[in-house]
Amino acid sequence: MKGNVIVGQSGGPTAAINSSLAGVYCTARERGAKKVYGMLHGIQGLMEGKYVDLSDFIRSDLDVELLRRTPAAFLGSCRYKLPEIHENQEVYEKIFDILEELDIECFIYIGGNDSMDTIKKLYDYSMVTGRGHTNFLGVPKTIDNDLALTDHTPGYGSAAKYIGTSVKEIIRDGHSLRYEHGLVTIVEIMGRNAGWLTGAAALAKGEDCEGPDLIYLPELVFDVDKFVAKVRKLLEKKYSVVVAVSEGIKTADGKYVCELGSNVDFVDAFGHKQLTGTANYLASLIAGEIGCKTRAVELSTLQRAASHSASRVDILEASQVGGAAVKAGDEGDSGKMVVMLRLSDDPYQCTTEVKDVHKIANDERLVPREWVNKEGTYVTDEFITYVRPLIQGDVSPVMVDGIPRHLYRPID
Amino acid sequence: MKGNVIVGQSGGPTAAINSSLAGVYCTARERGAKKVYGMLHGIQGLMEGKYVDLSDFIRSDLDVELLRRTPAAFLGSCRYKLPEIHENQEVYEKIFDILEELDIECFIYIGGNDSMDTIKKLYDYSMVTGRGHTNFLGVPKTIDNDLALTDHTPGYGSAAKYIGTSVKEIIRDGHSLRYEHGLVTIVEIMGRNAGWLTGAAALAKGEDCEGPDLIYLPELVFDVDKFVAKVRKLLEKKYSVVVAVSEGIKTADGKYVCELGSNVDFVDAFGHKQLTGTANYLASLIAGEIGCKTRAVELSTLQRAASHSASRVDILEASQVGGAAVKAGDEGDSGKMVVMLRLSDDPYQCTTEVKDVHKIANDERLVPREWVNKEGTYVTDEFITYVRPLIQGDVSPVMVDGIPRHLYRPID
Repeated sequence: MKGNVIVGQSGGPTAAINSSLAGVYCTARERGAKKVYGMLHGIQGLMEGKYVDLSDFIRSDLDVELLRRTPAAFLGSCRYKLPEIHENQEVYEKIFDILEELDIECFIYIGGNDSMDTIKKLYDYSMVTGRGHTNFLGVPKTIDNDLALTDHTPGYGSAAKYIGTSVKEIIRDGHSLRYEHGLVTIVEIMGRNAGWLTGAAALAKGEDCEGPDLIYLPELVFDVDKFVAKVRKLLEKKYSVVVAVSEGIKTADGKYVCELGSNVDFVDAFGHKQLTGTANYLASLIAGEIGCKTRAVELSTLQRAASHSASRVDILEASQVGGAAVKAGDEGDSGKMVVMLRLSDDPYQCTTEVKDVHKIANDERLVPREWVNKEGTYVTDEFITYVRPLIQGDVSPVMVDGIPRHLYRPID
Repeated sequence: MKGNVIVGQSGGPTAAINSSLAGVYCTARERGAKKVYGMLHGIQGLMEGKYVDLSDFIRSDLDVELLRRTPAAFLGSCRYKLPEIHENQEVYEKIFDILEELDIECFIYIGGNDSMDTIKKLYDYSMVTGRGHTNFLGVPKTIDNDLALTDHTPGYGSAAKYIGTSVKEIIRDGHSLRYEHGLVTIVEIMGRNAGWLTGAAALAKGEDCEGPDLIYLPELVFDVDKFVAKVRKLLEKKYSVVVAVSEGIKTADGKYVCELGSNVDFVDAFGHKQLTGTANYLASLIAGEIGCKTRAVELSTLQRAASHSASRVDILEASQVGGAAVKAGDEGDSGKMVVMLRLSDDPYQCTTEVKDVHKIANDERLVPREWVNKEGTYVTDEFITYVRPLIQGDVSPVMVDGIPRHLYRPID
């Protein structure tokens, strides 16, 4: 590699996105890149001239390890969609000016669907205009695991592990106290359209835990009445029922469950329409219909930020795809995304490939119907066989005075 | 020890309450107890004749280690207050019949204020009537850390560690994306009257993290207008602001902040008065007043159940107080609670003592005013010096197939 590398992070943060950054950095140095730049807040920051020399932050092997254990986007992220080329060429000229000025041989973008759209457009612009000598590569990242063409996306495994662990702990907590009419806990999990994260609640199940009682993915229609009947029946047999639901479950008429609470004048003190949240709504519904005690737990931000319980497989694979992107770029690939290709479940074996980014953008990969039981209330063993290898192993945090240490970058 | 031991768990579960159970079990066996019984769901279950022989579940040293790593009450818990002795002697006679039948030399109850009330009443009954030969001992437990006479309570350290770690991860997440008018994240933490848990959010602060921007404890009056002004000012300097609030903060007129949202007709589809939650209310308020993006995160059940990130000091001390209670009972103490006595902060040294349970019951220990800054918006260094030793060290989970293993007991 003769020139320099620039890398950016885009879209929602994960516990593994910085491990991909570490992979890019290490491989770029190994392959002789003189400089490895980092865009601050992705392509949006780059256009404002905001970037750093990564070697100012990563000064040792220990720093690499800390970076891998640091949640959220170390460089800052953005949600910025490049205009179509024919709409605004100025934007592209500006970006290519910067790439030229910095002598960028390899442009790496770590992100989800929208980020791959950025890679596609920059590559197309370079092809159409013949400008520059930069290769554009995408590195997959999303806890949602909804990117097409890849077996899974880095970030998903750690989120799944956190969800399985937390749901198991919540189930235990629920068994502590007996309430007269029982206790129903609704756990709300991220994933607006894809149920990969919600299905991971089933990982709680094992020799030492019954697992959640019901799991509802957003891919299937949610029937409120059937749900209430199911819970009522479960409460006849056990005093604590735990239900995992996706934030994105919808009724047959296409309405989000979290919007159902807004039927009445559900307006807060400031006149805003108050969105209850799916778990809150269902907990309130069950309390009203059945008269039992209910609890709503949103796993919230932590399911994507909990580096302290990351999956080793996930963190290592995240580095691996970062490194593979640099290698591909160095070898002349452009307009490509690195994907994971699973060779075998047991023993788990997975390798990387590069695929044309044009084939990827904006296709959402959902949980296959046959990986959910007939009633739509639980995932099947096939789902577990798929996800289980991705949560294996731990990345012990570097503890300083009782709290995990992260790699520091002052806030811009 | 010639007779048998019986142990029960009571009140809200914690990540360390089973470590106290393990301590009771191991010390009782060491001191020659023939049987160690466990009440199922505390004194309430015992009165229904529900108890187990703990050796049916704890069969090896590995089981002891698993029990220490199992969150929530292994034996099941209850919230049951014994009647006054003069109100209902039947209840007491029933309990003492069972204790006699089981030849109980030592009755151990692990719990908070209400549980110590149970110890007190049973002891008093034994004194007044001269019935039985059982010694009654209390073992402190509560994540709230609000028990009097003890330096701290087992369960608090692990919850504090989880809160410090999670708030740090949330702060990182907040720095990822820049929103046009900034982002304000409100993290809601347990503790209705005492701010020990909320103050632990400050543990996120260190060389690699600015920590939360504001911390509001329930001990001090919460001024809504000053809060909004503070946040507005912070947003002038930084694009992500993180605020930690106790669920129990109140305004000057004694109203819970979480009730403020119910001023208007905040009624859900089922006609219930909907309690917004403190974080939800404040997030909505800030969005309305300032126009920035806001997020509400409730740490919820996980702050008391997250065994996967327990503090080693906490887990070991929990065992220690359990063992100390058995020892005290074996040596003839009764009507006493084990307390923690701190000898030194650095190096941290703590020992156990037994105190008369009559001196303890129903006194709530709050955070001292001088451990909060003048404005009431952050804890002081004294607070950190107090809590820091309690979160030291880890208890690595026993991972099986990627998920922490717990000790199993089928649901009753």
